[in-house]
Amino acid sequence: MISVERALELLLGATPVLPREIAPLAAASGRVLAEEVRADADVPAFEKALMDGFAVRSADLAGGARDLVVVREIPAGTDPAALPPLTTGTAARIMTGAPLPPGADAVVPVEEAAPAASDRGAVRCAAVRPGDHRAPRGADVRAGATLLAPGDFIGAAEVAVLAACGRAALRVGGRPRAAVLATGDELVPPGEAPAPGRLRNSNGPMLLALAGRAGATVADLGIAPDDPARLRAAMERGLEADLLLISGGVSMGARDFVGATLRDLGAEILFERVAIRPGKPFTAARRGRSVVCACPGNPASSYVIFQVFARAVLRRMAGHPHPGPTAVRGFLAAPARQRPGRAGYWQARAMLVDGRLTAEILPTSGSADVVACARGNALVVLPAEIGTRAAGEEVDILLLDDCLDR
Amino acid sequence: MISVERALELLLGATPVLPREIAPLAAASGRVLAEEVRADADVPAFEKALMDGFAVRSADLAGGARDLVVVREIPAGTDPAALPPLTTGTAARIMTGAPLPPGADAVVPVEEAAPAASDRGAVRCAAVRPGDHRAPRGADVRAGATLLAPGDFIGAAEVAVLAACGRAALRVGGRPRAAVLATGDELVPPGEAPAPGRLRNSNGPMLLALAGRAGATVADLGIAPDDPARLRAAMERGLEADLLLISGGVSMGARDFVGATLRDLGAEILFERVAIRPGKPFTAARRGRSVVCACPGNPASSYVIFQVFARAVLRRMAGHPHPGPTAVRGFLAAPARQRPGRAGYWQARAMLVDGRLTAEILPTSGSADVVACARGNALVVLPAEIGTRAAGEEVDILLLDDCLDR
Repeated sequence: MISVERALELLLGATPVLPREIAPLAAASGRVLAEEVRADADVPAFEKALMDGFAVRSADLAGGARDLVVVREIPAGTDPAALPPLTTGTAARIMTGAPLPPGADAVVPVEEAAPAASDRGAVRCAAVRPGDHRAPRGADVRAGATLLAPGDFIGAAEVAVLAACGRAALRVGGRPRAAVLATGDELVPPGEAPAPGRLRNSNGPMLLALAGRAGATVADLGIAPDDPARLRAAMERGLEADLLLISGGVSMGARDFVGATLRDLGAEILFERVAIRPGKPFTAARRGRSVVCACPGNPASSYVIFQVFARAVLRRMAGHPHPGPTAVRGFLAAPARQRPGRAGYWQARAMLVDGRLTAEILPTSGSADVVACARGNALVVLPAEIGTRAAGEEVDILLLDDCLDR
Repeated sequence: MISVERALELLLGATPVLPREIAPLAAASGRVLAEEVRADADVPAFEKALMDGFAVRSADLAGGARDLVVVREIPAGTDPAALPPLTTGTAARIMTGAPLPPGADAVVPVEEAAPAASDRGAVRCAAVRPGDHRAPRGADVRAGATLLAPGDFIGAAEVAVLAACGRAALRVGGRPRAAVLATGDELVPPGEAPAPGRLRNSNGPMLLALAGRAGATVADLGIAPDDPARLRAAMERGLEADLLLISGGVSMGARDFVGATLRDLGAEILFERVAIRPGKPFTAARRGRSVVCACPGNPASSYVIFQVFARAVLRRMAGHPHPGPTAVRGFLAAPARQRPGRAGYWQARAMLVDGRLTAEILPTSGSADVVACARGNALVVLPAEIGTRAAGEEVDILLLDDCLDR
């Protein structure tokens, strides 16, 4: 039995980073950037109006509000080189985003301008200071500046940066393919009524949902019975994926064939027991560039093993520089107790109370209790050597990926 | 100009909840549940082994470890009704998840059992207490118990619960369709080199990414020039979607045609100015069952308007019972200052430091600065009447949906 830390080290050490690929910008959200992105030009590329209004020479208004003759209109998209200089006593009607003409050094917002009483072609402008409501060239970004780096997560804001830099297509980390196989003679598909002694396959759909949300494309291999030949055939198919997720068949029962079948298929077993609760019989292996995470059959165990280990495998494959689970510190809402010997990953509800992250460990009937997982949004981590923790003590908390949705 | 709260109220009041639909379980992750889910049977449905080992009568071991004759093997999936009672002095080899035979009341784990020295058909079992390593019928869930309710977010754990309850298909909230239209003569697609005075469309790809991540199916309507007829045609197409997201054309410039075109298309304008910074010219409208969110053209403004308003529209459409943005309380890392009059939504980096949520407002060059958005993972909200806040003061913080990814 090895520690969670050592197991993660072995597992990630055996996990390849997938080859980078080119993705169109429209498909880049959620991926990992695999190139450096530099600004290809100053942003803005010219002195730009930040408000709709009138481009002026601020010196003309140094004495206060004054009528200026409106000599032209400058829509956004105008070529700045085509603009004649603005002469003293004149203004140019200008749109947000349009270039200021030479000589102009400020914008009077339309709200601070009014038709001049004197002249139908003039406008009365309130006083402005030099530089008001205009951005100098390069105010947002200087040409050549590094805006994004390899390993950056691509969210919507990064998509905007990439678009602004002209990246209609870009280099991203690969998208892992995950295959999910549930094992066990007792399982029936969720749509069937289980005969006495049998139960519905909940691990398969759950692992598919977890892997999909973690960014993988998923293949459902269904249910394999506890029959070595059929299990082997299903696992052989699963090894075509980057990550084969198996549930069940890893305990010490007479019909737990997963470990033996992995060996038989030529896979290298990385470990077969981890000092974690729930999830001790978690078995990991690799064959070629494929990784296998074989989770215990109890749903809450599979859930925890995915959150702690399998997600890290998928993230590493996709090119995340820090793929492992990242705990934050928070406070226990109530005392916690566990049997020392294995690190406990307890279903919990984390909340921010007056700016403090507080977690309440949820009551559970055991490692088959997936209802507790559905009530939680986090895992409280108690190290293997710990037996008790008092209310209010600081603990490690793993916030789960959908914690903001629950 | 109306407050953010009033704008949200008007906007959500005008937003219809989409008709519910039936989704297969494999497509339910990320959706909103639209039915109550009760357990259709006890879980487990029978007295179940929690470990691989030997089902025993604990009274046989009351005096300590003892040899028991192994009379049968009980794999998972065995019909409990088919099991003969376990007689005194005997044990049944049993797998995790298999039913205990009548008479057995505990499981001796395989790790605590050894072949008997005396008899090749017997096993030496360590002492156990009644109930050890076995779950009584209904231990996890009682038949009829309500496990999930309408409005629940469907994450992977809920998928497992749904599978366990036999929901191969289920009723979920509708999936909104969002159309995205960028407007402006100055815009060119991201793949093109902008002529002088022009710039690349970054709002369109950004809004598509935001809407997609918020659960919508998205349609890209590209760029409409500041030409009333072509803008009208593009907006008419966009109104076929549940939510039309527009960027640009809502300021007070001579070529800001979006408001007028919305009226011309028969849309009801809900509001045209919101006391928010950035994003004041945010315009919202509805026509029939379609909602329009027309965001200012500056990327950081569009980003904020989406996070505060458009996401709430999509969530309401999808059936979320609390669709609006939910702020948490945290602490300012450094003093903050704003011009009072509009609520400030400041790009920020939120971090948990020793269990306390702390946010640092990021430097920005203004509302066109989407690079600041990419550096952030949260928005610090300063109410409209506030001018300054000291370091360490408590503030509202909106954690953005991808805050755990950055």
